Amino acid sequence: MQLLDEHVLNTLKWDQDGLIAAIIQDHSSKDVLMMAWMNRESLQKTLEIGETVFYSRSRATLWHKGETSGHTQRVIAMHVDCDADVLLIQVEANGPACHTNNTSCFFRTMTDFAEKPEQL
Amino acid sequence: MQLLDEHVLNTLKWDQDGLIAAIIQDHSSKDVLMMAWMNRESLQKTLEIGETVFYSRSRATLWHKGETSGHTQRVIAMHVDCDADVLLIQVEANGPACHTNNTSCFFRTMTDFAEKPEQL
Repeated sequence: MQLLDEHVLNTLKWDQDGLIAAIIQDHSSKDVLMMAWMNRESLQKTLEIGETVFYSRSRATLWHKGETSGHTQRVIAMHVDCDADVLLIQVEANGPACHTNNTSCFFRTMTDFAEKPEQL
Repeated sequence: MQLLDEHVLNTLKWDQDGLIAAIIQDHSSKDVLMMAWMNRESLQKTLEIGETVFYSRSRATLWHKGETSGHTQRVIAMHVDCDADVLLIQVEANGPACHTNNTSCFFRTMTDFAEKPEQL
């Protein structure tokens, strides 16, 4: 995919930490798999390699999804919302999105969570 | 729906502004419609009335989606992600989610956006 030029990058609305939220959706099932954050570098890297690359806020580093697990996400399409402050990325997932091995990080209903909030 | 008790509310991971991201998905088409923010009060209000109520960061006030437009979103299901810092809410939408009158706020591809970043 084509990298974004400086003007386009500047038109996206980055938060105070220079990040933008990226919602990851399975392009085939349309399940929402996860939400993560991107900085400018990780977005460009995602466009460059055609797989999701996020910015890990806890580790303060780029995070190529699946780098160690092999559960990469190939980018099929990318959308920008009306405010240009959220990305929606449709992917073909090569394995579960979640570190718990669930297909999606949203595997708990609010009811399940309310009953056992500490349990994953 | 049942309101969350204090312990469950405290187990959700609110950001430094006391907010949590809420991804809104059409329960039938599975299209992702929008992303918005909730504080504790708007989440409880959402559970209480069964329609989405967000926290508007720009107006610093609760925002019952569709209050003026009539384009309310009836909550069908609610999920919490593995980190408990993002909500996924499946809704039945009574009209377009976007203020542009598009069904979804994600109506622009990144390619469209890169060509005309200022145009909605």
